[in-house]
Amino acid sequence: MAKTMKISARNQIMGTVKTIKKGPVSTEVVISITGGNEIVSSITTYSAEKMNLREGLKVYAIVKASEVMVGTD
Amino acid sequence: MAKTMKISARNQIMGTVKTIKKGPVSTEVVISITGGNEIVSSITTYSAEKMNLREGLKVYAIVKASEVMVGTD
Amino acid sequence: MAKTMKISARNQIMGTVKTIKKGPVSTEVVISITGGNEIVSSITTYSAEKMNLREGLKVYAIVKASEVMVGTD
Amino acid sequence: MAKTMKISARNQIMGTVKTIKKGPVSTEVVISITGGNEIVSSITTYSAEKMNLREGLKVYAIVKASEVMVGTD
Amino acid sequence: MAKTMKISARNQIMGTVKTIKKGPVSTEVVISITGGNEIVSSITTYSAEKMNLREGLKVYAIVKASEVMVGTD
Amino acid sequence: MAKTMKISARNQIMGTVKTIKKGPVSTEVVISITGGNEIVSSITTYSAEKMNLREGLKVYAIVKASEVMVGTD
Repeated sequence: MAKTMKISARNQIMGTVKTIKKGPVSTEVVISITGGNEIVSSITTYSAEKMNLREGLKVYAIVKASEVMVGTD
Repeated sequence: MAKTMKISARNQIMGTVKTIKKGPVSTEVVISITGGNEIVSSITTYSAEKMNLREGLKVYAIVKASEVMVGTD
Repeated sequence: MAKTMKISARNQIMGTVKTIKKGPVSTEVVISITGGNEIVSSITTYSAEKMNLREGLKVYAIVKASEVMVGTD
Repeated sequence: MAKTMKISARNQIMGTVKTIKKGPVSTEVVISITGGNEIVSSITTYSAEKMNLREGLKVYAIVKASEVMVGTD
Repeated sequence: MAKTMKISARNQIMGTVKTIKKGPVSTEVVISITGGNEIVSSITTYSAEKMNLREGLKVYAIVKASEVMVGTD
Repeated sequence: MAKTMKISARNQIMGTVKTIKKGPVSTEVVISITGGNEIVSSITTYSAEKMNLREGLKVYAIVKASEVMVGTD
C-alpha cells in the first residue's frame, strides 16, 4: 500500500476526512468534499491504520463507475 | 423500477446529467454535482432508457459505502 | 437518507426483514422473499439504525446487475 | 471456469435463464426465480459463452452480501 | 452454501489461507497465492464459519472482472 | 486520472497487460501476474484509452477486499 500510482477508477474526488469510526475489522470514513457534500467509505481497519487516516487529512474518495447507480425523483 | 423508495446506500449525491454515452448493453452517465465535481456511473442501457435519463435531468449518484476507497497523496 | 427516489438498480426485490445482526460498523440483514428464498445484505450499522430496520418490516433487497454472478451445476 | 466449488457468497439463488442479451464485452442475463421474481445479471460475454448460458438453463444468481442494499417505502 | 457449482466470475485464483481475523459481522481472510502474492478478502463471519475456513486450507480467491481496477506508475 | 496516489484497496498486484478487448463502453483487460496466474478486469473504454493501456505495459490489478469471495473444493 506504500506504492503511489494512477488508477482507472473514473471517480477520484478530493476531500478532507471529517470523521473516522473504527470497528475490529471494518472502519467507516466520512469525507467532506467541495460543495457541501459528504462521501462515506467503509474500508478495512487495517487499511485505515496503515494509511494513518485521521480527521483533517486531505484524501480522495475513489469509486469505480460500475459501482455508481443513478436515482431520480 | 417504477417504485419510489428510501435506500440504505450512504451516498446519495444530488446532481445533473451532463452527458450520456450508450453502448448495446452498458451506458455511461456523467453527473455534475455542486462544487464543480463530476461523478461517472456505468449502468445497463435498459435502465438508462427505462428511467429516460437525458442531459439536464436532476438525478442522484448513489454509491454504497463499501464501494468507496480512500486515496492519499 | 430521508429522500424517496427511483433507482437504476435492475434488482429491487420485495421482502420482509427476518433477522438483523448488528456489529459496531457493519450490520447483517436477512430478508425473506416470496418463493421461500432469502437474501442477505451487509450494510453499515448507521444505515440500519437510520432506516429503523427491524424484524417484520417490509423492505426491498436492491442489487446492481453488475454485482450478480451466474453459477451452474 | 471449469472448476466446481463452494463459495462464500451468502446469496446463491436457484433459477432459470429467461433471456440473454449479448454485447461485444458485456452480456445481460435475466434469471427467473421461484415466487415470480427475476434477477438480472451483467457479466462478461466471454463468461456467458464459456458457460454456454442459454434460455431455459438451470442456474444460480450469486451475490455477495456486501453488494445488497436495503430499501423501504 | 453446501452446493458446489461453476461460476461466471472471471477470476478464480487458487491459494492457501494464511491468516483469518474475525469480527462480529465481518471476517478478513488473507490468501497466499503462487508467485509470492497475497489476496485479502472480507466476507461475513457467518460464511467464514460455515465454510470452516482455517489457516492452511486450500481455497480460491474469487473476483468478478467488473470489480478489478487497473493502476499504472 | 492524472493524479498519482496511494489507495486503501488491500489488493494491488503487479502484472503485465496481456490482452485488451475494447467495446464501445466497456473494455476487458487481461493482466498476467507472477506465478502464472491471470487477473481479468473490466473497466470503461474511456479509462483504458486515457491510461493508454496496451499489451506489455506494467500495471497493477487493484481490488477492494470487500469484493473478494472465497471458494473451496
